[in-house]
Amino acid sequence: MPVSSVPTLHELYAGRAKTLGPAQIWPEHEGDLITLAYGFAAPEMFPTDDLLAATAEVLAEDAAEGLNYGPSYPGLVQLVVDRMHAQGTPAEPGNVLIAYGSSQVLALLPEVFVEPGDTVIVEGPTFMGAVRHFAAAGAKLLTVNVDDHGLDVDALESMLRDLAKQGKRPKFIYTIPTFHNPSGTLLPLERRQRLVELAKEYGVLVVEDDAYGELYFENPPPPRLSALNHDGWVLQVGTFSKILAPGLRMGWACGNHEIIQRLHSFKLEGSSGPYLTRVVERYCADGRLARHIEELRAAYRERRDLMLAAIAREWPKDVMVPKPEGGFFVWARLPKGMSATKLLAESEKHGVTFVPGTHFYANGQGDDAFRLSFSFVPHQQIEDGIARIGAAFRTMV
Amino acid sequence: MPVSSVPTLHELYAGRAKTLGPAQIWPEHEGDLITLAYGFAAPEMFPTDDLLAATAEVLAEDAAEGLNYGPSYPGLVQLVVDRMHAQGTPAEPGNVLIAYGSSQVLALLPEVFVEPGDTVIVEGPTFMGAVRHFAAAGAKLLTVNVDDHGLDVDALESMLRDLAKQGKRPKFIYTIPTFHNPSGTLLPLERRQRLVELAKEYGVLVVEDDAYGELYFENPPPPRLSALNHDGWVLQVGTFSKILAPGLRMGWACGNHEIIQRLHSFKLEGSSGPYLTRVVERYCADGRLARHIEELRAAYRERRDLMLAAIAREWPKDVMVPKPEGGFFVWARLPKGMSATKLLAESEKHGVTFVPGTHFYANGQGDDAFRLSFSFVPHQQIEDGIARIGAAFRTMV
Repeated sequence: MPVSSVPTLHELYAGRAKTLGPAQIWPEHEGDLITLAYGFAAPEMFPTDDLLAATAEVLAEDAAEGLNYGPSYPGLVQLVVDRMHAQGTPAEPGNVLIAYGSSQVLALLPEVFVEPGDTVIVEGPTFMGAVRHFAAAGAKLLTVNVDDHGLDVDALESMLRDLAKQGKRPKFIYTIPTFHNPSGTLLPLERRQRLVELAKEYGVLVVEDDAYGELYFENPPPPRLSALNHDGWVLQVGTFSKILAPGLRMGWACGNHEIIQRLHSFKLEGSSGPYLTRVVERYCADGRLARHIEELRAAYRERRDLMLAAIAREWPKDVMVPKPEGGFFVWARLPKGMSATKLLAESEKHGVTFVPGTHFYANGQGDDAFRLSFSFVPHQQIEDGIARIGAAFRTMV
Repeated sequence: MPVSSVPTLHELYAGRAKTLGPAQIWPEHEGDLITLAYGFAAPEMFPTDDLLAATAEVLAEDAAEGLNYGPSYPGLVQLVVDRMHAQGTPAEPGNVLIAYGSSQVLALLPEVFVEPGDTVIVEGPTFMGAVRHFAAAGAKLLTVNVDDHGLDVDALESMLRDLAKQGKRPKFIYTIPTFHNPSGTLLPLERRQRLVELAKEYGVLVVEDDAYGELYFENPPPPRLSALNHDGWVLQVGTFSKILAPGLRMGWACGNHEIIQRLHSFKLEGSSGPYLTRVVERYCADGRLARHIEELRAAYRERRDLMLAAIAREWPKDVMVPKPEGGFFVWARLPKGMSATKLLAESEKHGVTFVPGTHFYANGQGDDAFRLSFSFVPHQQIEDGIARIGAAFRTMV
């Protein structure tokens, strides 16, 4: 006998699926609006010819395995291993998981580590695209501020000490030590060393998001955190998005074998596909990736310089704009009393948009700063966009 | 002050991650062993030239969006919508989720529907690659047998009636109505109609796995379940794996908009990549996919015929081998008292392997049957493999 009342689909959902979170919003093209908001790659720089050549090679030489069922290509795992070695991080294939972008790793992290109420330490400001996954899993987020030289390690130590006194042990610290998103900062070697010592001392995992580490404009950055700790307390999260193309959705995690196994087991769809992992490996082989990274460094350096020069020309002098030594972003701090949200509203009237600092804090701070991306739009738009923000500033004084 | 004892990484894991499930095992090449085990695609049939052409078109015409951040290509969503319409299933873009293979959809299903102890109805035999995800989520699995014409809908009705008497409502019924894996059966129209009526009457979702529906060898199959119910009680799960290439990891779910939204929200990495979704769409356009499917039908029909002819020649007559009208598999039922597990051990001594029926049942049954795949190995290996199994049979009589 059927159930008495008219059954509905909604009654079938698991508790966790009864309500629906906000959907991911993708930007629309917005006419004349210049967007300095998106941390997208420079489309002019995509190495389409080399990518096509790599595709042709895979299809000619390895289609039988590449197009059938199978694991992520072991050759790509080995390539990541080799790149880790080149950075001073010892790794074997069992230390590497290939994922659909580093964002998939960041989304899987709380599956492995976070139960509701667990403490996770994040930077302020930080990349909230990662942090929202930690929050969704019920993590209690504690924020340590970033200053002009990255994570304030003194403040971190004091937080860890206080937590230990309360008998609390955070699950992990999420940090972007190299060309930080959004602040563009670079954590100096001494802070790096102290950070990994603290991780080991307090038994807290450090999740090192290294999305931008290859994109240095002057000198190579100090050793990765993963190169400074060999006891498994650092999990590096990396990606081909910034050095090749975000649309390929190809990234990795590199760290302790047991963590990697667990991330893999929560990656429900299994591999990241035998085909595209082969194309990416083949692209990277023969020095194509290395050459391309050199070109990207030059291109993004030029854009950064263009943006900073325009800012020096067009903006009030009391806006603090540190010079980022790599990455995609310029971080601007406003004079006391000025609001980034208000500046944004005014700027949009002038035909330019950016991301206000509040979008980068888990604790509601950030209205005194904002992020500009120099990576995405062409040169002329960088100059025009900065000038338009300059005009917006002048209406606010 | 650091915590007193030496902290370990293991203490950081969430409860769900403390123990580690078995890892997915990928087959190794095994020398002279002929494998009729894997449901892999025929590697000789991969349309490498057309796939390269589609790749070249995307890279030439749409790289700026295809290689940057973005959602799954809306054009591929529309293509699935159009294919659904062609099958008689009304759908709009909001009814479709593009996923990393249908296996990702099947892995996400329990996230949306299953809490520990919930009832899920599966077929016996069935594709355990899907069912293991339901079991991992804590579902109580009930099995309805498949006969020569697919799911025994009488038995299903009686099970639903008994459950309703106990006040129990299953979350979903997982079924492969068209060229069933592993049994090769085709559910007739009348059973399809009754199945979707029962779904609506009892308020149970039907998950229709349509992996093989396009690969018919004689006549097109009856309408999909999704074409017979327009009230949201059928969720179709589809894939480009069997009609294009498994290595691309590209599949979809099509059904009620609210279910699609929920599947999407549990797909933590977001989109399935703007790049490969464009390549697949471009490949399918201009009739390439339609032509290729015709070629696949002919190729797999030939392999099926070859396998059945070899079986008729080489095996004892009391092994029951129904003729599948499509798909990848032949299902063989043994005479009473004979064990597929024992036949497999003997067959491997003769240099051939297959999958015993026990691998396809959630309830421990199946040692009276086994699955042969004619899709993967070349013609000569089909004939040799069947002959070797014939030799194994002769040692067992």
